[in-house]
Amino acid sequence: MKIIKTVRDMQDFSESLRLRGKRIAFVPTMGYLHNGHLELMKEGKKLADCLITSIYVNPTQFGPDEDLDKYPRDFEGDERLSRNVGVDVIFYPANSQMYPENYHTYVTVENITDNLCGLSRPCFFRGVTTICAKLFNIVKPHVTIFGRKDFQQLVVIKRMVTDLNMDIEVVGMPTVREPDGLAMSSRNAYLKEDERESALSLSRSLKYAAELYERGERDAGVIIKEVKDFIEKHPGTRIDYAKICDVETMKDVERLDGRSVLALAVWVGTPRLIDNYVFGENK
Amino acid sequence: MKIIKTVRDMQDFSESLRLRGKRIAFVPTMGYLHNGHLELMKEGKKLADCLITSIYVNPTQFGPDEDLDKYPRDFEGDERLSRNVGVDVIFYPANSQMYPENYHTYVTVENITDNLCGLSRPCFFRGVTTICAKLFNIVKPHVTIFGRKDFQQLVVIKRMVTDLNMDIEVVGMPTVREPDGLAMSSRNAYLKEDERESALSLSRSLKYAAELYERGERDAGVIIKEVKDFIEKHPGTRIDYAKICDVETMKDVERLDGRSVLALAVWVGTPRLIDNYVFGENK
Repeated sequence: MKIIKTVRDMQDFSESLRLRGKRIAFVPTMGYLHNGHLELMKEGKKLADCLITSIYVNPTQFGPDEDLDKYPRDFEGDERLSRNVGVDVIFYPANSQMYPENYHTYVTVENITDNLCGLSRPCFFRGVTTICAKLFNIVKPHVTIFGRKDFQQLVVIKRMVTDLNMDIEVVGMPTVREPDGLAMSSRNAYLKEDERESALSLSRSLKYAAELYERGERDAGVIIKEVKDFIEKHPGTRIDYAKICDVETMKDVERLDGRSVLALAVWVGTPRLIDNYVFGENK
Repeated sequence: MKIIKTVRDMQDFSESLRLRGKRIAFVPTMGYLHNGHLELMKEGKKLADCLITSIYVNPTQFGPDEDLDKYPRDFEGDERLSRNVGVDVIFYPANSQMYPENYHTYVTVENITDNLCGLSRPCFFRGVTTICAKLFNIVKPHVTIFGRKDFQQLVVIKRMVTDLNMDIEVVGMPTVREPDGLAMSSRNAYLKEDERESALSLSRSLKYAAELYERGERDAGVIIKEVKDFIEKHPGTRIDYAKICDVETMKDVERLDGRSVLALAVWVGTPRLIDNYVFGENK
């Protein structure tokens, strides 16, 4: 496994692979890897000849009051996990490589970023799309793999790739969960012991919403109210949003007709956790 | 010479060239080709194995009150000129290929677009950077060639390519002029016969500014005043801007110390013409 730290070396490496007709799969991460990331990597391994991951805590997707400085990091652990899962290259750049002086360019996806995380975290998606555009140009993948836990992010990345005609296949993978149902996230590391139980309110409320749907409930307002009530019973929770949206436009829906997603963002103690459930889909 | 009209066909063609180790040069244009474009193409021909040009009047770089509908078009003439100069492929897409329904993604370069054309035409550079990002992803060039007549555009494109880590060389070529000095532009086609003389006020005022500089004048305000007075003496002219800026930051300068550019945008009758002169540089 190679560790590459400069943009030039990474581009040269990928270009030489492509010249030899090799297929590149890419999993971008902010490190502090967990099984969610590793599942993306295992999928990448199947889809290509060379699996590249990036480990980079991207400053432009954090707001001024967010957890950039405290974001958990463990490069040695990440290196070991990546090696075990068969990663061929870790791209591990410094901030000076990614955002040198006089950096001025941003990629924005409008409209579908107006709701949910785009509403709560105004700079977030601009940071995500910008860093992904950069990483795609550096790593030059044929296929890139994202988790569906960050549902809106996946929709936004697909939109960017389509709109900017990036010749890259975007694959979305199911959310990986702890045995008790908690969606895996690097931010789970922030959870104190007594908050762990409250954190389960996200996945459990989604399960509850799924049951309501199965029983025939189609009123988004009714389901959202039940979900909010459910979560709020748990100590230490503070709901950022609980919304049911169209899976493509990310606009709120009133009735669950087409494909809709219930998306949650909830602070549990310190961390803000997200999770989602797509109605009418076998997961 | 091939004419390719769909994004998919263009990407496949370019990818197959790259797989065979061929080098691709790209000259994006809005058509209605003149010698300025042809010089870019001749340079592209020298720099690569395959020369691709695009002919596409990009709607997103026109403001609501601008000349999108009236922009001059002559595909058959362009085809002939392209063939003569050795173009291998013309990429000639329809709007539905480039901006399909639900299109939502834009590339913006901040800061250096705040002055000059960015100030007069608020959507212009966003449109230019967005279409160029798209075209680069479609045509997949190793090198792209732009004219220095659109000086700020060249600076902005270089900034985008650097910032987004596009692995593309950007070459800037000198402005090509008519024998009497008028910078070549597709918009010169709009000039009525009596406006043709007034249009010369741009290149002539630049020449006058160069003389003032040679004689030791370093006060930007003095030079700008002389240039404006010179242009305004010509009937039918209306100055949009006449500014002296730093060639990298595009910020106004007071004294001509580092490398500075005198940039002009002037309506002459209907068309708004641009031209520029870089001080302290042998052109």
